[in-house]
Amino acid sequence: MIGVMTNSTSSSPIVDQVCENGTQHVEILPAINDDHGGVIVEMKESMDSQTFLVLLRASIGQWREQGKKGVWIKLPIELVNLVETAVKEGFWYHHAEPHYLMLVFWIPATANTIPANATHRVGVGAIVLKNEKEMLVVQEKSGRFRGTGVWKIPTGVVDEGEDIFMAAKREVKEETGIDTEFVEILAFRQSHQSFFGKSDLFFLCVLRPLSFDIQKQDLEIEAAQWMPFEEFANQPFIQKHDLFRYIADICLAKVKSDYGGFSPSPMTSFFDDKTSYIYLNNKDLKKFLSSSI
Amino acid sequence: MIGVMTNSTSSSPIVDQVCENGTQHVEILPAINDDHGGVIVEMKESMDSQTFLVLLRASIGQWREQGKKGVWIKLPIELVNLVETAVKEGFWYHHAEPHYLMLVFWIPATANTIPANATHRVGVGAIVLKNEKEMLVVQEKSGRFRGTGVWKIPTGVVDEGEDIFMAAKREVKEETGIDTEFVEILAFRQSHQSFFGKSDLFFLCVLRPLSFDIQKQDLEIEAAQWMPFEEFANQPFIQKHDLFRYIADICLAKVKSDYGGFSPSPMTSFFDDKTSYIYLNNKDLKKFLSSSI
Repeated sequence: MIGVMTNSTSSSPIVDQVCENGTQHVEILPAINDDHGGVIVEMKESMDSQTFLVLLRASIGQWREQGKKGVWIKLPIELVNLVETAVKEGFWYHHAEPHYLMLVFWIPATANTIPANATHRVGVGAIVLKNEKEMLVVQEKSGRFRGTGVWKIPTGVVDEGEDIFMAAKREVKEETGIDTEFVEILAFRQSHQSFFGKSDLFFLCVLRPLSFDIQKQDLEIEAAQWMPFEEFANQPFIQKHDLFRYIADICLAKVKSDYGGFSPSPMTSFFDDKTSYIYLNNKDLKKFLSSSI
Repeated sequence: MIGVMTNSTSSSPIVDQVCENGTQHVEILPAINDDHGGVIVEMKESMDSQTFLVLLRASIGQWREQGKKGVWIKLPIELVNLVETAVKEGFWYHHAEPHYLMLVFWIPATANTIPANATHRVGVGAIVLKNEKEMLVVQEKSGRFRGTGVWKIPTGVVDEGEDIFMAAKREVKEETGIDTEFVEILAFRQSHQSFFGKSDLFFLCVLRPLSFDIQKQDLEIEAAQWMPFEEFANQPFIQKHDLFRYIADICLAKVKSDYGGFSPSPMTSFFDDKTSYIYLNNKDLKKFLSSSI
């Protein structure tokens, strides 16, 4: 029997350990414990696949004896030579980003409780109105609207780690040069199977323009202009499609009545001190709070 | 010069093509065009890495001549032996799911416009009130609330492809056995760096109970009960933390006044016939639409 020693709380490089009775050398992969009874290995140094295989097998054996559950191995793309070895030992892919691949393995005989990967991309559409009459609209050079002649609101994808309201302001600025102040989220749509099987959340936002001189971005935008709202709403394409009809209706409801959307309020997370934003109907909440004092 | 032939619109297996002048055999990888001037290769048949390398180089050469931009290669986990070859030819990871890895490469000299991977996980929290006075609350067996004694609302992660309102109903049913009807989303929070660097969207929902007899789920739930709302709101933990205070305040505003949240309406997508849901302030929109007729 191999004499194994615990190294699962260390994040130091691979160690060559010798048991006290001197009978056995045991090297294992450097790992830290996670919060769910598993271990995380973050590989950093290059290694040939045969050495990795020996270490991996010894490590799994040790973790199995310790009753560990999930085993995570993060492989930087430079260590791509080790991917095949891990998969052949029973690991599967969990997720990947440009610079690394995360593999995972479940030791117990029970069904695994490995959490799922990120499931949604998040997009924004920006309603920007001048004097409550003219709408900021663009024609796109590529993508689904290319060549259709449709005038649409600026849209874009929320970047990794970006707040929704910041993304809306950024997209408007990038595509048209217009500076804006964020007002509210008026609605959102969730759709599935939109991109490599992932789902999509699209937030319809309204922003107040702070400048009016359009400087269109040349790479993505064919044309940009302030267009009378009725002209936008009367485009046959808008009339024909549910989402665009909703955009036109909600926009009118916002301008002409007191449609209540969700606006962002900063808050502090309860497990760390990070600031994040909660989006809620501040108009109705404030009305209630002031009436209940 | 190698005589190349176009195969980029075919999804057939690898073909052995002969130029009309008979001077050259050229095999390339089977690919289909995407909507953005790129190609997608979905590898299905096993292959040794040397054969793959030859095909990959010939294919890239051809796509380069054709002015193609992004090249996507989807490798099922069974073809893990080809990952290293692709990376050594300049491909990087785009995303991965348990059964496959998506690699990507950008041919032009210009900056790449490869779209980002999914960035968000989506969670739900469910406010379920009995007679507008008692709230459905649980204590959890694992995770961050384990052993804290905190009574909280049922929460959970939205599954891949699942609608938010369905996830809220499912989580309540799974954790407590209570059947519900979905009413509205009252607010949502976006936070960053919550899980492997990914962001998190948490939707606070209100649901109407259709049954009242609690059958708690044993695996995750320590205890479940109907608790007077004041008792829930007065827990020191709730008072101390922003998100929980918001939950209590918004819940009161909903019950005691006319706080307007977002409710789901089915709609048809404009590029396919799929049904998806748009969440909006239906109360205010209907009020406006009926007044404007």
